[in-house]
Amino acid sequence: MIIDCHGHYTTAPGALARFREAQLARLADPGLPLPSEPEISDDEIRETIEPNQLRIARERGHDLTIFSPRASHMGHHVADQATAAEWARVCNDLVYRVTTLYPGQFAGAAQLPQVAGGPLDACVSELERTVSGLGFVGVNLNPDPSGGFWNSPPLIDEYWFPLYEKLAELAVPAMIHVSTSCNPAFHTLGAHYLNADTTAFMQLASGRLFDRFPTLRLVIPHGGGAVPYHWGRFHGIGYREQYPPIETSVLPNVSFDTCVYHQPGIDLLTSVIPADNILFASEMLGAVRGSNPDGDFPWDDTKRYLDAAKLTDADRDKIFERNARRVYPRLDARLRQQGR
Amino acid sequence: MIIDCHGHYTTAPGALARFREAQLARLADPGLPLPSEPEISDDEIRETIEPNQLRIARERGHDLTIFSPRASHMGHHVADQATAAEWARVCNDLVYRVTTLYPGQFAGAAQLPQVAGGPLDACVSELERTVSGLGFVGVNLNPDPSGGFWNSPPLIDEYWFPLYEKLAELAVPAMIHVSTSCNPAFHTLGAHYLNADTTAFMQLASGRLFDRFPTLRLVIPHGGGAVPYHWGRFHGIGYREQYPPIETSVLPNVSFDTCVYHQPGIDLLTSVIPADNILFASEMLGAVRGSNPDGDFPWDDTKRYLDAAKLTDADRDKIFERNARRVYPRLDARLRQQGR
Repeated sequence: MIIDCHGHYTTAPGALARFREAQLARLADPGLPLPSEPEISDDEIRETIEPNQLRIARERGHDLTIFSPRASHMGHHVADQATAAEWARVCNDLVYRVTTLYPGQFAGAAQLPQVAGGPLDACVSELERTVSGLGFVGVNLNPDPSGGFWNSPPLIDEYWFPLYEKLAELAVPAMIHVSTSCNPAFHTLGAHYLNADTTAFMQLASGRLFDRFPTLRLVIPHGGGAVPYHWGRFHGIGYREQYPPIETSVLPNVSFDTCVYHQPGIDLLTSVIPADNILFASEMLGAVRGSNPDGDFPWDDTKRYLDAAKLTDADRDKIFERNARRVYPRLDARLRQQGR
Repeated sequence: MIIDCHGHYTTAPGALARFREAQLARLADPGLPLPSEPEISDDEIRETIEPNQLRIARERGHDLTIFSPRASHMGHHVADQATAAEWARVCNDLVYRVTTLYPGQFAGAAQLPQVAGGPLDACVSELERTVSGLGFVGVNLNPDPSGGFWNSPPLIDEYWFPLYEKLAELAVPAMIHVSTSCNPAFHTLGAHYLNADTTAFMQLASGRLFDRFPTLRLVIPHGGGAVPYHWGRFHGIGYREQYPPIETSVLPNVSFDTCVYHQPGIDLLTSVIPADNILFASEMLGAVRGSNPDGDFPWDDTKRYLDAAKLTDADRDKIFERNARRVYPRLDARLRQQGR
């Protein structure tokens, strides 16, 4: 089967965005009433999923998507914990409904109520609620909740440890995924996302986080940012700075997804990064939509590139399915319950 | 011939670093005397260049290096214009001496006295001085003088226009190159440098800077950061956001260097980016030094990767020489004067 480990509910019904607008309006004017939860019917969910993510997944032959709220709308830069907690809860509950309407096609990954510089207690609680209560199998962890100002400690800092402890306890991996850029220097999808991937990898490569959390699993999306392209540079820097080898200090715990939207990029990824460390993903519907006018297929049809890549059947099987089952043990359990 | 467009005087005599320390000490304690200029003999320059950059260039068959002060030490985050101006002048004068001691092997590229948020007058003056006065052929332009806090306007903003006007007037290209990261989130060589390359490209791709400055030439180092690896993503984003096509709005004015330290990376770069837009470079002595313990050659021996890449002789000739002569017209003039 084919598991897409990186999909977002970017097509959520308009009521969700209106709820967010009301939240932000109330933050600006505390005299306003607390916004009521968005009223969204099952039919509205079906109407936004079936002709979009579900149609495309079926056309391409993806069997299941690990599905999370829209990453660019997580908005962790909004510095109010109660607002963040409510927003994450509402977004996650909506994703949960997608996973109950289409239990065979979607599994949930949570948005965390991060607040730049804030404590992680609410994140730990929401992680527990979504995993133990809603059956989620993953979570998105934002290494820069400020939204492009990068004032949080590196991922190897003990600031993050309470979350890692809960992730390890629950056997849930985290995808390292930023939200929108509030910094005019960084285009959200074309710079901030990729920079975050590169930055996170280098933070991990410069420490020994996984000595302390040997069962923690992290996924770096968007093909690992610049990392595979500069694989020699990262090895050379690590050697010069006497960091522990990437192969033994990072790769046992870190995977890259395949959200790379052209054949040479996928060919590089699959030739440089061990097959055990690659998870199939499309980011669909994500940064890039529609078809390349120079071709006749969508940019984000990453399965097409993987089908054309020089891979053994065993490695392709790892990338499409086996690695996801290993990295997301709760997904594996869910699939087994479904007889898959 | 083989022109390396990206080398730094990372091996400068210790007196230079001591001068900088004295500068910073005086900033902290204005009661201290103004530091006197570092006294460095020609022999000291020879002793730091010949066994290092020059030896390696000869071994590898590089004929000429466009040489600039150590990028990570530019220190544009230090918010004092007079200090920055003096530091740039001293660093550039030292590079100038390298180019006079070895006029066939080195051509100069300037450090600018940028100060985060400051006006660019001193930069324009130093550019004029180094190009018209010292015969420099290029310059390094820091898109983030804050050192990892990214509080300067994007490169398409009119803040930068006075510098672009002078660059166009002098027919000098700028390499977009950050300095050290003061932000603990960003490893200088493993994250900040690559992020800056990606960020700069996306800034340029989202505007029409070159409509206004049709003769301005910019070089994005380190193989363009994440850009070639994500070439499909950048095209898809541009298409979705209705930016002008990269091929007509960016590529006529922007080149990538070849500081990518493994064969698959160079193969991707040369297969994705038109040969007209690639400039040979090694960054030597740069981020990565020494030999890969899994091989028997240095990581930064980028000529080796280019020799092995699938390129026509005409394209290899462009990458090694012709493009540099086109992008750096003052280098071409200098070489012609030398009968080369």
